[in-house]
Amino acid sequence: VSATNEQIIGTIDRYVAAFCADDRDSYVALFSSDATVEDPVGSGVCTGPDEIGAFWDSVHGLASSIALERRGAPRIAAGEAAWNLRAVSDLGDVKVFVDIIDVMTFADDGRITSLRAFWDMGDMAPLPADS
Amino acid sequence: VSATNEQIIGTIDRYVAAFCADDRDSYVALFSSDATVEDPVGSGVCTGPDEIGAFWDSVHGLASSIALERRGAPRIAAGEAAWNLRAVSDLGDVKVFVDIIDVMTFADDGRITSLRAFWDMGDMAPLPADS
Repeated sequence: VSATNEQIIGTIDRYVAAFCADDRDSYVALFSSDATVEDPVGSGVCTGPDEIGAFWDSVHGLASSIALERRGAPRIAAGEAAWNLRAVSDLGDVKVFVDIIDVMTFADDGRITSLRAFWDMGDMAPLPADS
Repeated sequence: VSATNEQIIGTIDRYVAAFCADDRDSYVALFSSDATVEDPVGSGVCTGPDEIGAFWDSVHGLASSIALERRGAPRIAAGEAAWNLRAVSDLGDVKVFVDIIDVMTFADDGRITSLRAFWDMGDMAPLPADS
């Protein structure tokens, strides 16, 4: 038994919505109790709700808001998913964006059991003014 | 020490070229001797050049040719990569395509140590006639 495609897409959409609403509680609740977050890949691995909440806080200490936009249909296989997204961080005077590929695994109830985010600081760029 | 971004992009581009040239030897040579291939995620894991070559043969038994097209810049982090591609399979009377996200790890020499391909047969669709 694994999460259904509908559960997986629902979780991904709630993940995006939690960022856009600046909703820390909803973000942390998306993860199973022993979930791991490696965002970006190569940074430390956060495990469980306390560390994942602290990760949220550290990311939001850098930007007044971070909006996510899902791009294209998630690729779902055997209860895992990879999907494209754009993150736009508001730094006050300027907005910067980075395109990311997230890879996620899921529990039977649709919660995220692991997240690995493929992006690099060097890929960040100022958002064009007309975006 | 890990593969450089330049090595990784070079390997990805040779991976695409090997498919487009229908070049089995070049494809198999892209992988380290103990590399694993799970394509798509959830299917069996092939390990080493013999099994990876047999995987190539089984895939090419289904289509007279398979062309790959890289879409967008690979997301590279800590010597791993995730990247978007489109596979177009020529079935004779019809061409079908599927959009894929590949996740790869690499040896110091740039060869692939693991490949996990996120796609599902259900995502395949006939290629529009004008493509």
